[in-house]
Amino acid sequence: MSFSPLIDELINALRCLPGVGPKSAQRMAFQLLQYRREGAAKLANTLHRALEHVGQCRSCRTLTEQTLCEICSNPRRNPALLCVVESPIDALAIETAGSYGGLYFVLHGKLSPIDGVGPNDIGIPQLMERLQQNPVEELILATNATLEGEATAHYIADRARAFNIASSRIAHGVPLGGELEFVDGGTLSHALSGRKTI
Amino acid sequence: MSFSPLIDELINALRCLPGVGPKSAQRMAFQLLQYRREGAAKLANTLHRALEHVGQCRSCRTLTEQTLCEICSNPRRNPALLCVVESPIDALAIETAGSYGGLYFVLHGKLSPIDGVGPNDIGIPQLMERLQQNPVEELILATNATLEGEATAHYIADRARAFNIASSRIAHGVPLGGELEFVDGGTLSHALSGRKTI
Repeated sequence: MSFSPLIDELINALRCLPGVGPKSAQRMAFQLLQYRREGAAKLANTLHRALEHVGQCRSCRTLTEQTLCEICSNPRRNPALLCVVESPIDALAIETAGSYGGLYFVLHGKLSPIDGVGPNDIGIPQLMERLQQNPVEELILATNATLEGEATAHYIADRARAFNIASSRIAHGVPLGGELEFVDGGTLSHALSGRKTI
Repeated sequence: MSFSPLIDELINALRCLPGVGPKSAQRMAFQLLQYRREGAAKLANTLHRALEHVGQCRSCRTLTEQTLCEICSNPRRNPALLCVVESPIDALAIETAGSYGGLYFVLHGKLSPIDGVGPNDIGIPQLMERLQQNPVEELILATNATLEGEATAHYIADRARAFNIASSRIAHGVPLGGELEFVDGGTLSHALSGRKTI
């Protein structure tokens, strides 16, 4: 409750931002209206434009305002490698790491029977169609290291096998720079069972 | 760097929110575009409207879309008490505490000669004019417990004395529920020197 219905409305609207609770929303609303009116106006405009123009890439389904995203339309990317991720921000994380030169496919979710999310909800038909039309040498499954992410990866690998396409799963284990002492048991077990000869 | 100039622009625009760094801005942009389009559209609209309509209350200078804010226009508030705060959110904090029934005056800042902020920049002339036209019984100085907040309180108390208006300063000390062990030295010294007979 502030002194003004319109400010209250703004505080409520700010709550749609991830990680913003009632206190931060209040602070944001007052800061924007008091000291950052120019930035706030720019934010409102950019948000409007992004909502109007940003959709999914026709080929990889990442978020973009173009028909074909910058990666899919880049002729220097290797079309023989296809990396499957759960969301656009995961693809961005891999891009930022900088060592991957292939293409992506974004599921926008993961298989989750309990929530009613099946293969059709995460674009598996499109993925299979794409594999049929443009077979790749390797399908890299980079879904998250959660139960549902694992299940999704296994499901896709199974389906891809029908087209004779080899799938791989990204490695899971102790993070670089991670000290064993502070790594959780699940990760440690995984790192042990996935050990390699050196 | 994302895959799309428009998303990059949105990430940058989100940085104007207080406490939002590059990583959170990225997460916010993707979440809004992926899962919260309705909330995002509402945010953009509300922000537009708030920027257009919210200004300062003619009397107390708090943020409001009315000429006179809900507190100043409430006949049940005690006009003999005037509480001076640095910003609208401070007034809101006092309102939320619920025990104050007087009116407010919002400075929108504090005296800070080093930053070139003088009495005219924080509405002291308006405050003095108001005190001259509608003398109050007590001027409660609730500026922050910082060096500048203290200096501002003392300056206003000095000026108000010219109109024979008594000023008081809110108490500073150990917070309720605070354990001495965890209270900083400055607060503790202040609490000691401000002790009262019981």
